[in-house]
Amino acid sequence: MKTRAAVAFEAGKPLEIVEVDLEGPRAGEVLVEIKATGLCHTDEFTRSGADPEGAFPAILGHEGAGVVLEVGPGVTSLVPGDHVIPLYTAECRECEYCLNPKTNLCQKVRTTQGQGVMPDGTSRFSYKGKPILHYMGCSTFSNYTVLPEISLAKVRKDAPFDKICYIGCGVTTGIGAVMFTAKVEPNSTAVVFGLGGIGLNVIQGLRMVGARQIIGVDMNPAKEAVGRKFGMTDFVNPKDHADLVGHLVELTGGGADYSFECIGNVDVMRQALECCHKGWGESIIIGVAGAGKEITTRPFQLVTGRSWRGTAFGGARGRTDVPKIVDMYMEGRIDIDSLITSTMPLEDINKGFEMMHTGEGIRSVVLY
Amino acid sequence: MKTRAAVAFEAGKPLEIVEVDLEGPRAGEVLVEIKATGLCHTDEFTRSGADPEGAFPAILGHEGAGVVLEVGPGVTSLVPGDHVIPLYTAECRECEYCLNPKTNLCQKVRTTQGQGVMPDGTSRFSYKGKPILHYMGCSTFSNYTVLPEISLAKVRKDAPFDKICYIGCGVTTGIGAVMFTAKVEPNSTAVVFGLGGIGLNVIQGLRMVGARQIIGVDMNPAKEAVGRKFGMTDFVNPKDHADLVGHLVELTGGGADYSFECIGNVDVMRQALECCHKGWGESIIIGVAGAGKEITTRPFQLVTGRSWRGTAFGGARGRTDVPKIVDMYMEGRIDIDSLITSTMPLEDINKGFEMMHTGEGIRSVVLY
Repeated sequence: MKTRAAVAFEAGKPLEIVEVDLEGPRAGEVLVEIKATGLCHTDEFTRSGADPEGAFPAILGHEGAGVVLEVGPGVTSLVPGDHVIPLYTAECRECEYCLNPKTNLCQKVRTTQGQGVMPDGTSRFSYKGKPILHYMGCSTFSNYTVLPEISLAKVRKDAPFDKICYIGCGVTTGIGAVMFTAKVEPNSTAVVFGLGGIGLNVIQGLRMVGARQIIGVDMNPAKEAVGRKFGMTDFVNPKDHADLVGHLVELTGGGADYSFECIGNVDVMRQALECCHKGWGESIIIGVAGAGKEITTRPFQLVTGRSWRGTAFGGARGRTDVPKIVDMYMEGRIDIDSLITSTMPLEDINKGFEMMHTGEGIRSVVLY
Repeated sequence: MKTRAAVAFEAGKPLEIVEVDLEGPRAGEVLVEIKATGLCHTDEFTRSGADPEGAFPAILGHEGAGVVLEVGPGVTSLVPGDHVIPLYTAECRECEYCLNPKTNLCQKVRTTQGQGVMPDGTSRFSYKGKPILHYMGCSTFSNYTVLPEISLAKVRKDAPFDKICYIGCGVTTGIGAVMFTAKVEPNSTAVVFGLGGIGLNVIQGLRMVGARQIIGVDMNPAKEAVGRKFGMTDFVNPKDHADLVGHLVELTGGGADYSFECIGNVDVMRQALECCHKGWGESIIIGVAGAGKEITTRPFQLVTGRSWRGTAFGGARGRTDVPKIVDMYMEGRIDIDSLITSTMPLEDINKGFEMMHTGEGIRSVVLY
């Protein structure tokens, strides 16, 4: 079949909207009509050429929602008409990782996914007879796409695609880091570094689980209002404090129970660890640092009881947890609507990336 | 009263055996007759002058066992005749730390202990009319010493002082790191870096909790035999492997579930983290690094599921947990006898420190 898609033909170039060829689903695969997709910094990281593992030409996009059109042989958990959210972290429920309750990093399709192909080693997309790579196992910048069955979370049919697509990455990453990775207890104190799309979702996750103090840290004073809307209790601008860590330790009465780095800056990662409470503070790295960057601290920070950890996709097991997060949204326990600050047709997708750079709004969503 | 003690009059000088004056216990304090004390690297770290917080003159020693002789006003949990192990990590059971189940770092007497004085700000020791400092709240290199009630674990009377003194530091630090900090599960894999007194106790802790693979790493091939005696299943000499981390990942079939750094070398701390399994591996820092040294890694190590943590006194709450470890020894579940490789009278204590430097034996114990 033919499908409209925004193709990244070369690193650093704008995406091009073209009609590409899409093969139908093979064994264990599913054809999905994407109804909406968010634009995430990770897509832009790859598009720009900064991602050392980026490969081209590819169809980017990994934060979508849509409807199952057709299933390949052997697919048992999905039927045409099911509503789904694509998962860049699959959940096969049978690999060593899926069987270990401490991790969500299913490895079943990891290698081929990283190479931009389906588990059988080939691509379903082509343009003028030449293959185009998949991206993060999702390629939601195509109106139609093919994914492994284990890379799709089935969700309720009354949930709006234009909102729940954001659960495919940003919402789950932020809320999941609180619920699944840190397992924040009620009455905790927390510091969130970076109030972009991830940071705000961390904040609303903290509010949901009953944190008593939620401190947001951002250099942009305009972030204070939106932070407070999502549950932030205190705002700190690093520019106002020569000793940021000391200020945060004072503000939390000895250090935070939890901190979250949502930027990808290794110096901030150190501050995030060191503002944690002696004895029990845990710092969770969410942001992705540039290639070759390293984190550093004195081991004394750990020996005196702080823990340094990280999270990917919020520690969520996609097929199991994403439907629960859709419920949270539908039941009004989390807010997604306020985070989606612009929508556009696929043709305008490059404008969405431009807005990301100017810092306008929080999340842009493409509606097919 | 008078008591014989090995006094560190100056940094870098041998200890001097002299008779010092000891005041009796004030409110909340206890006079203890020390029967035996181990010599720990931490004592030597301070004696040598390398410890930036070392203060002199002082009576070192923090790994002892003895008998209560007299209690001060208000002491309710101990009576003369009780057998006790001094605790350099107190357990008041009422501070913010003691009330938080995630930490053992009681802060009740921390500040004054760090200054070498009793909680009321004064010392009980003096020599020729001038005060001599306490050390780590214990000063077990004195035949008689005074401690806060909350810095004493009451233990069973049938346990031999010359063995259980080691529970005051090394045994608890090693076994506790496994039991209390890492909470290692049966069937886990683990790598232990450094097979000195702490590392061997980590190894026997791992054996006790049912770890299935216990890899010891040490540059000294002579450590293999003793490591195996304590439960080590594999021995790795870093000199034999250009890519030590790669070798350990292969040996464990993907990385260790847990690793323990028992040396205090920041480069080894990085190896210990990076040999852990993606998704769930936890690395625990036990060793104390030199002043100003820092640990470094790529944040990717944490984002892909490894945790970096530390431990002090094995995460043990002394008054609660030390008596249990004495039971483990008395019931034959752990071995202390083989670790104590020499004993000496107080007069020969400097010979014990010399043996530490030559690497002869594992632990030396002074018998009063």
